Amino acid sequence: MIEEKAPTRTSLAELGEFGLIKHLTEGFELKNPSSRKGIGDDAAVIDFKGEKTLVSTDLLIEGVHFDLSYVPLKHLGYKAVMVNLSDIYAMNASASQITVSIAVSNRFPLEALEELYAGIRLACEIYNVDLVGGDTTSSTRGLIISVTAIGHAPEKKIVYRNGAKPNDLIVVSGDIGGAYLGLQVLEREKAVFEVNPNMQPDLADYTYIIERQLKPEARKDVPPMLSELGIKPTAMMDISDGLSSDILHICTQSGVGCRIYEEKLPLDPQVISTCEEFNLDSTTIALNGGEDYELLFTIAQKDYDKIKGNPHFSVIGYITEKNEGEMLITRSGEPFKIIAKGWNALKE
Amino acid sequence: MIEEKAPTRTSLAELGEFGLIKHLTEGFELKNPSSRKGIGDDAAVIDFKGEKTLVSTDLLIEGVHFDLSYVPLKHLGYKAVMVNLSDIYAMNASASQITVSIAVSNRFPLEALEELYAGIRLACEIYNVDLVGGDTTSSTRGLIISVTAIGHAPEKKIVYRNGAKPNDLIVVSGDIGGAYLGLQVLEREKAVFEVNPNMQPDLADYTYIIERQLKPEARKDVPPMLSELGIKPTAMMDISDGLSSDILHICTQSGVGCRIYEEKLPLDPQVISTCEEFNLDSTTIALNGGEDYELLFTIAQKDYDKIKGNPHFSVIGYITEKNEGEMLITRSGEPFKIIAKGWNALKE
Repeated sequence: MIEEKAPTRTSLAELGEFGLIKHLTEGFELKNPSSRKGIGDDAAVIDFKGEKTLVSTDLLIEGVHFDLSYVPLKHLGYKAVMVNLSDIYAMNASASQITVSIAVSNRFPLEALEELYAGIRLACEIYNVDLVGGDTTSSTRGLIISVTAIGHAPEKKIVYRNGAKPNDLIVVSGDIGGAYLGLQVLEREKAVFEVNPNMQPDLADYTYIIERQLKPEARKDVPPMLSELGIKPTAMMDISDGLSSDILHICTQSGVGCRIYEEKLPLDPQVISTCEEFNLDSTTIALNGGEDYELLFTIAQKDYDKIKGNPHFSVIGYITEKNEGEMLITRSGEPFKIIAKGWNALKE
Repeated sequence: MIEEKAPTRTSLAELGEFGLIKHLTEGFELKNPSSRKGIGDDAAVIDFKGEKTLVSTDLLIEGVHFDLSYVPLKHLGYKAVMVNLSDIYAMNASASQITVSIAVSNRFPLEALEELYAGIRLACEIYNVDLVGGDTTSSTRGLIISVTAIGHAPEKKIVYRNGAKPNDLIVVSGDIGGAYLGLQVLEREKAVFEVNPNMQPDLADYTYIIERQLKPEARKDVPPMLSELGIKPTAMMDISDGLSSDILHICTQSGVGCRIYEEKLPLDPQVISTCEEFNLDSTTIALNGGEDYELLFTIAQKDYDKIKGNPHFSVIGYITEKNEGEMLITRSGEPFKIIAKGWNALKE
């Protein structure tokens, strides 16, 4: 796939480490007034003028987090940024800078890295963040991407995971389960392709869920939207590992329990139809899928009217006392204990 | 080597991703008042109360940056932190937080990662920095470490690479070339060991240079020392790739040339004796060695008296107009053009 996209191959060794960094990052302009010094010195310098600094980081490894046989490099660059920005938005904060470090084996030509950086650049443009630093080196195998996102917020706006209180409402933005299902479709097509390379995949029925997997969008819009609605969540995090795993983090850190209603889980019609086709239970997918990068948060009951009927948000349950446990209430009214089954990179 | 050090082997999959992060990071306490929220939320929260935020990041790959056959994991953890703190000190700033992300293949037992984190912890304690975040995941091969260092400084203290002026003096802290020579000794011993595993290495004559390689110390002491002396460097960076490569960065970014005097290069006696033994030219080693993590900086002529005779610093030359080029003046007075021959991870 890399060969197809990049008929010209320039060896990385020709450029050298500094040449490569310079080549890949030229044309990235600093747009945020807080970015005082970007790439080119020992460290980036950032000025948040008294606001708090937020920092989040993620490491993505080829063969563990992504498969280049069906993930275009430009999408990968975009997604690597999204994954990190999402963590900053999940603090109810603004993201303003990233650093990107990559390690590549010599099977990657320069043109492949240019694709990757095209995705990073697009993400920077759309999300108004500045690339301010990083590191470029070689790997003994595959592609490794480490992104650190830096953001800021006034102290009183920051939302942690530990503030949920009994009777708070549990809310998710957008819909969930799509990213995981998109991955199932891509893996099926890859398996088909391996058996019969002449088979042309027909992905028209899966465009939404494939986009959720390959080109997720972090919910930059949610913190300002909540601010306009006059809502400060009591707890918030992003849904990266899966709703079940992530609501348990909020419950554990807040010392509370929860009730989530199966019938309230926001599912896109394509998620439902694809689940039927794959013979998967859509509730299981919504609970355990992960990688949707939607925001999961809790709000005080008094704020319900502010959010009721808002198409961006779904109230899916409420917070309980800790001793009531973390329960999913099925459509038939039966309670089941929620167990974290989210993605675990360390399991084989 | 890992097996010798860790007779007990606990599989990482038993703990899972969150369990592993928790296990490795418990006991790390936040000591800096600026560390408002550490590990456990979507992002760390840091309060620099109006000072500028500095961010630097590095990615270390097994087989490229380190060889676990002679680098103990505890030392590796320590060094991974040093490499990053050094970048913050090179801005004349204070380092206060780090994030550490690691990816490991399943050949690593938990006990190996505990060793790695023992080194990280020791570095945090000695350098008074807080571990505030990170990511732990699996790799398809080997160990990958990504460290981001975060620091702060009042704007007027920050020193960039681009402020060197003609007639400024060029200064280095400590001595240089040792780390590279230490690596040569370790690689020789490894080669000997591979031929005859019963051979016991005798490293007594090389303790200083091996320590420079395995357990470098970032120059945290230099910014406050300069402050006490009443000196603000005009340009500064750390010597990670090698003096020749690094002085060229300063010259390029400042739009100046330089004259460095061979006879002024600060060399430890062990560097000189080991160079003789290995039949290496000590000036070449001092210029191109790298990994010493000393600071290279320029100061105005008027500050010379403040630094003269100070055992921590050596004046090795001066800055010239750009059209005079970047020259090394040999002991015999001959000028040679300085060429960057520092370490390049992308060359094969």
